[in-house]
Amino acid sequence: LVIPASGTPEALARIAENDKAWSVIVIPGGLEEKLGSEAIVAQMRKALGEARARGAGPLINGGNCLGIRSVSGKYNTLFIPEHKLPMPKGRVAPLAVISQSGAFSITRISKHPDINPKYVITLGNQMDLTIGDYLEYLRDDADIRIFAVYVEGFKALDGLKTLQAAKAIAESGRTVIFYRAGRTSAGAGAAASHTASIAGDWPVTRELFGQAGAIVCESLDEFDDAITICTLLSGRKPKGNRLGAVSNAGFECVAIADNLGGMKLAKFSESTNAVLAKVLEDAGISEIVDVHNPLDITPMGSDEAYDRSFRAALADENTDIGIVGIVPFTVRMNSLAADPALHEEDVTKADSIANRYGLLMAETDKPFMAVVDTGPLYDPLCRILEKHGVVVFRTADRALK
Amino acid sequence: LVIPASGTPEALARIAENDKAWSVIVIPGGLEEKLGSEAIVAQMRKALGEARARGAGPLINGGNCLGIRSVSGKYNTLFIPEHKLPMPKGRVAPLAVISQSGAFSITRISKHPDINPKYVITLGNQMDLTIGDYLEYLRDDADIRIFAVYVEGFKALDGLKTLQAAKAIAESGRTVIFYRAGRTSAGAGAAASHTASIAGDWPVTRELFGQAGAIVCESLDEFDDAITICTLLSGRKPKGNRLGAVSNAGFECVAIADNLGGMKLAKFSESTNAVLAKVLEDAGISEIVDVHNPLDITPMGSDEAYDRSFRAALADENTDIGIVGIVPFTVRMNSLAADPALHEEDVTKADSIANRYGLLMAETDKPFMAVVDTGPLYDPLCRILEKHGVVVFRTADRALK
Repeated sequence: LVIPASGTPEALARIAENDKAWSVIVIPGGLEEKLGSEAIVAQMRKALGEARARGAGPLINGGNCLGIRSVSGKYNTLFIPEHKLPMPKGRVAPLAVISQSGAFSITRISKHPDINPKYVITLGNQMDLTIGDYLEYLRDDADIRIFAVYVEGFKALDGLKTLQAAKAIAESGRTVIFYRAGRTSAGAGAAASHTASIAGDWPVTRELFGQAGAIVCESLDEFDDAITICTLLSGRKPKGNRLGAVSNAGFECVAIADNLGGMKLAKFSESTNAVLAKVLEDAGISEIVDVHNPLDITPMGSDEAYDRSFRAALADENTDIGIVGIVPFTVRMNSLAADPALHEEDVTKADSIANRYGLLMAETDKPFMAVVDTGPLYDPLCRILEKHGVVVFRTADRALK
Repeated sequence: LVIPASGTPEALARIAENDKAWSVIVIPGGLEEKLGSEAIVAQMRKALGEARARGAGPLINGGNCLGIRSVSGKYNTLFIPEHKLPMPKGRVAPLAVISQSGAFSITRISKHPDINPKYVITLGNQMDLTIGDYLEYLRDDADIRIFAVYVEGFKALDGLKTLQAAKAIAESGRTVIFYRAGRTSAGAGAAASHTASIAGDWPVTRELFGQAGAIVCESLDEFDDAITICTLLSGRKPKGNRLGAVSNAGFECVAIADNLGGMKLAKFSESTNAVLAKVLEDAGISEIVDVHNPLDITPMGSDEAYDRSFRAALADENTDIGIVGIVPFTVRMNSLAADPALHEEDVTKADSIANRYGLLMAETDKPFMAVVDTGPLYDPLCRILEKHGVVVFRTADRALK
């Protein structure tokens, strides 16, 4: 239904009066954000309030949002052509994205082509339904293990509702990832002209949501990374904090060790050390490298040495989480997309490093991550890993953050 | 010259005795890092020491490094085939990368295909030449405006030498970007088995280099970003800290405003505001958006509206630095690589948003950055911007960090 902005209050009033709709998504734009639009919104709110008072009236999502993509509901109001934003396909991820901003939500979709969230809900300025309403409602959906919440401002008392829902979700062993925009006075000003939100007190909000058990993110990258890790490694809860690490770059081993945070380096068992020593010997590098954790298998390490060493490190009884750094420049490794004019490599081969770690992902229930700290030439390698559900980072310290 | 590890001390002794070489690069590997290699290194040091004592003997770079790529010297000892690591071509960047780690250096090359550093020097465990030696020597090369230094540990007294050189460089108005690995005890352990470095006191090192005027980085991403920004925007020193910002996503405007750090939002002049109002009117969005900084031109903004609005914001007398966020999903924008079966767009067209901002880069001497917060589908757009020398970030908050 496309109507001019000026006709919206009347349309909404009629919908409310006649009780002909269960729910309405109000998409664009400018409502409450543009000077002079307040009167229109006041009329819409009034009509809705009157209908509600007599026990009727629809639920309203928006305005000023991109609407909703619901896999269960089989609808998608994001109205962006497939060639500009291919929608994720395949297995539905146990993820709900609840966001005031529409552009923010589609950016997440674009960045995670292999993650197909059950719901992507954009709310705009929450004229009626709020962040808290959705989080409370979806709390009881057992299919959803991860709730990613982007907020620019809470409606009155909705912060409390959201907080209580977040706490209940965390207590049920599931995950709430929380990002709060409009934290500074300049940010709050920009939020007011985006979703007409009034900023709250960020340090207090952070503390409260942290205490409620939510993962509170400080940056867009952190929020992105938290979604990726929690979704792809869902169901692989580490038993402890002991990290097993392999890389073929010394600097990456240092970066891993420097950024352990709450983790510590696993002490490999004697049998693992024996396997690793054999791998180094077979690769002809036992004369230049000792067995350590992190293990540096050097640029001499082949696809096979890589695979064997990391399998051993991950399988060790003292390893809870694995990380493997792949610096793919060495000719010992099959890491490039096919290009017969230039070389004989093909990263899609069954025994390529990417497919080997894909196989490992399917075989183990321990969580692990890969690091590919390179430029775009090695994007195909990363895409294969990602298609196998491996979490890939482009720097080691970001992986551990 | 390829010789077995065990033959290295003798070879080095002969070189030193006969004074037949000016300089030697010792490349692999394991020297001092592998248990049992200490004796070999001691012999090498002894031979070198004796030669030096009689005023002769070569300079040694390494061991355990990838050597050096020198544009001026026209040599490259990184021995990685071009198809696995295409070397940057074209204009030589005013950048020297001085790094103990070889893999770290080639990772930087891979990530910045359009930045062609004058020198990439990898030092390994600094058997002879040190970080401080190189920094002191290159200090007087007026072609180099940015010195990117990666250190795992200083040789005795070399920290002081490096610090003094860094201070002199900063005082000359040029830039030292400093990253120190091996900061934690676990990281120091890993550094010992990489470049045999002994870790110093990180908080003290950070404080000293910060006071000396270096940009001290806390993460690999930060180091990467500092190299990109300083190199590409070299010669465009902002006159102040006033930021002018345009995006077509409200959330990005909020993220920009939230992450100003030491910057503040420029207050546009009346004439700029009039231009921006006209752009919004021409784009048919003046009814839903007001003129602000950051300006949200919404998904209705076309290539042309984007170009006109950001040009005006950047040109304003009150703007010192510009940032433009491009959320390229809208069909109003020509942002995809050509694919005639799917659509009619072609991001290589002369009037594409990427080429328009490339033109702007050439026309202005004010520094600006672009944000393209998307997945891989929009990499071609980013590559065109980068080829024009525009600094591109994939999230707004990382751009401002």
